Amino acid sequence: MAKKDTPKSRKAARKPSDKDKARKWKTKAKKLAAELATLRSATETPKTKVKLVSPLAPKGGFPDLLRIPGVEFASAAAGVRYKGRTDVMLARLAPGTVIAGTFTRSATRSAAVLDCQAKLGRSEGADAGAAILVNSGNSNAFTGARGWASVNAICAAVARKLGIPETRVFTSSTGVIGEPMAHERIIDALDGLISELDADGIAGAAQAIMTTDTFPKGAMAEATIGGQTAHIVGIAKGSGMIAPDMATMLVYLFTDVKISQKHLQTMVSRQTNTSFNCITVDSDTSTSDTLLMAATGQGPAITDLRSSGAKAFEKALSDVMLNLAHQVVRDGEGATKFVEISVTGAADDADAKRCALSIANSPLVKTALAGSDPNWGRIVAAVGKSGAAADRDSLAIRFGQIPVAANGMVDPDYREEDGAAHFKGDEIQIGVDLGVGSGKATVWTCDLTHRYIDINADYRS
Amino acid sequence: MAKKDTPKSRKAARKPSDKDKARKWKTKAKKLAAELATLRSATETPKTKVKLVSPLAPKGGFPDLLRIPGVEFASAAAGVRYKGRTDVMLARLAPGTVIAGTFTRSATRSAAVLDCQAKLGRSEGADAGAAILVNSGNSNAFTGARGWASVNAICAAVARKLGIPETRVFTSSTGVIGEPMAHERIIDALDGLISELDADGIAGAAQAIMTTDTFPKGAMAEATIGGQTAHIVGIAKGSGMIAPDMATMLVYLFTDVKISQKHLQTMVSRQTNTSFNCITVDSDTSTSDTLLMAATGQGPAITDLRSSGAKAFEKALSDVMLNLAHQVVRDGEGATKFVEISVTGAADDADAKRCALSIANSPLVKTALAGSDPNWGRIVAAVGKSGAAADRDSLAIRFGQIPVAANGMVDPDYREEDGAAHFKGDEIQIGVDLGVGSGKATVWTCDLTHRYIDINADYRS
Repeated sequence: MAKKDTPKSRKAARKPSDKDKARKWKTKAKKLAAELATLRSATETPKTKVKLVSPLAPKGGFPDLLRIPGVEFASAAAGVRYKGRTDVMLARLAPGTVIAGTFTRSATRSAAVLDCQAKLGRSEGADAGAAILVNSGNSNAFTGARGWASVNAICAAVARKLGIPETRVFTSSTGVIGEPMAHERIIDALDGLISELDADGIAGAAQAIMTTDTFPKGAMAEATIGGQTAHIVGIAKGSGMIAPDMATMLVYLFTDVKISQKHLQTMVSRQTNTSFNCITVDSDTSTSDTLLMAATGQGPAITDLRSSGAKAFEKALSDVMLNLAHQVVRDGEGATKFVEISVTGAADDADAKRCALSIANSPLVKTALAGSDPNWGRIVAAVGKSGAAADRDSLAIRFGQIPVAANGMVDPDYREEDGAAHFKGDEIQIGVDLGVGSGKATVWTCDLTHRYIDINADYRS
Repeated sequence: MAKKDTPKSRKAARKPSDKDKARKWKTKAKKLAAELATLRSATETPKTKVKLVSPLAPKGGFPDLLRIPGVEFASAAAGVRYKGRTDVMLARLAPGTVIAGTFTRSATRSAAVLDCQAKLGRSEGADAGAAILVNSGNSNAFTGARGWASVNAICAAVARKLGIPETRVFTSSTGVIGEPMAHERIIDALDGLISELDADGIAGAAQAIMTTDTFPKGAMAEATIGGQTAHIVGIAKGSGMIAPDMATMLVYLFTDVKISQKHLQTMVSRQTNTSFNCITVDSDTSTSDTLLMAATGQGPAITDLRSSGAKAFEKALSDVMLNLAHQVVRDGEGATKFVEISVTGAADDADAKRCALSIANSPLVKTALAGSDPNWGRIVAAVGKSGAAADRDSLAIRFGQIPVAANGMVDPDYREEDGAAHFKGDEIQIGVDLGVGSGKATVWTCDLTHRYIDINADYRS
């Protein structure tokens, strides 16, 4: 009887040969091996940290930033900690440059921050030019007296090699905390850096200051002052306020306007308040956060902060700072949603900001965002705990343009599916009106995802 | 040739039989199947929310709580939201009972909380007895005017059926927010509840008030007052400050002491400050947090807060409150570590607490704990951002008894493996000395794990 004619009943009854068994188990083992491989690749902890680019990164990559007359950049691989990448950037600023800055208010801030703060107010040697030197890989924070020794050694070397006073050398360090920094590696790299100073070197500088950032961050804007065009460019690093072993938000801005240090500081402080001080990834503050702005004085002049030129310039500055601040949020650790939270109707602007940050930092709200869950009850709770004056029975909430709650209860026309549709997107707007005054504030944050836990609990860089 | 004598080279060369092959593939398939099952059970997302008991739950289960003369309990399944479980508890308190309480300071607190607060200070009808009614399943928060209607309807029904003034009925609600509460279901359950009131009913009451809790929480203590024994028992619910759709921390304490409402309130407020106000799971505050303590007056009397009896009683009260507070942390969402954070050397106690809570609420610190990573740099950052006065260069840190950092830098004798060994345990102690004064505080928290994200992002109850 031909095999193909074997009746099923007889085939079933036939005892399988060893060959049949081998084939059966082989097929089964191959299938299981494939399933196991798939599941493993989906779940396995990578042995090395994979550098994924944030899904919220701006399209188009790093922008072509304008040259600012009087500013040159260089970057180098000094081997402070990382291998195979640049980790030091130097910016040389022409004589006549004024510098303003804002810094972390952390009580445990690093020696580099304290040194910058001490130097900002000093006027001696201001005409001699200046330099900014930044390294990644080691934050030189919580390193006791050795921290100061490193800062002083770097400043002295830069000053000597560039022929400027030590008081005009500003440094920042970002990376691992608590380990003495091999500052001699930075000093050894100085001659190479100086020989490569280049007015077009800003993109390399933005790369060199990255730590856990998944993309370099740059922005620019122009303003018309008395018929002349002023330019502002900026770079930033930051992947949330925090990262493995502590990261930092560092920002460097350059402009060609001619302006007094005092006026520049006023604008920088004011605009920091509504940009970098209005973003949060996880409420943790670094010990090294630094923003420095250099004005080389080779472009149009601002002498009166109330002039229309000054206002146009401050608006351009605001644009650059907000752009960079948003890029930091977009590179927040594990972020999949870019979230704008606007609070209106507060007793005053400070109360509005307090309330907005309470919502932005609430793990409840952030996990709801991660789950695309329009869970407005969690927003009510975050408003309640913020300490901002609020009237429970006139509180209103909206998602994008969708009214969600009003007069202290859910809007009768609100449909959960409308909220859910808005939360499915990767740009989410939450509006809250406290119903007690006219104070307002807007802050930006991202969601709290499994990847945040991966980065911060499962690895240590 | 006997098989055992076959030389290795020949054996290797022999072509395996089909039987050998079948055995080989079968062994391989079984091994792969086992690996796959293990990996699946470790990684698969459950289709339904599994009610796991926290790994930090106290051993031995719910304690056998003493009877308190003058207190009876009943619980029932009223079907407020949940099916197949109890969701209402009633406590009847004998005439002469005084009641004290502490509440959430949330600006969006619920009508039940506002109602309790308004009633606490009133003395009329205090001799008539009292009642506490608590439901789970619906928090009746952010429900506008309907929220008040529900509270008033429940209080009126309980008062009428128990023959006590409405001002002596205290209610709490916990569960989903923003949905009108079907209070008539609770009222319909009242006759059944009253018929089952029982001096031994406290364990059932602890079960009925649970929402996302993974175990019921109870504690007790005794104190000797003028040769007589006073008793305190308590129950609590809470799985962190928060849970899907907002949970709540609710605490009910019962004692037989005879004491004025004013004195009881003084002790309750003082001890809340160092127990329930010193725990945090995720920094989110509920709109319904309530602690009520009833003293039935059927045991020994306290007339002077400075007496040794009063001090013994307050110590016992502290023990019960701390025990329950720790149980809430141990049931924190996703918790795998119970963490005690002690800050000393602060400018004052308030500064110490601010600093300790800053560490306890830092996502950086909490994820490091989850990863058993003794990342002390993150503790330095949390101290720095807390706003507490700190001297960077005299800051000291220890893990358990291990000195980690002193004088603003890592201790030269600290070995990372010692810190890692301490962080591997499920009970972790972090000590920080700020080096500026004599203020101190201790707070308790848990770690931030993937399961927290699961509970709060991936599901909505």
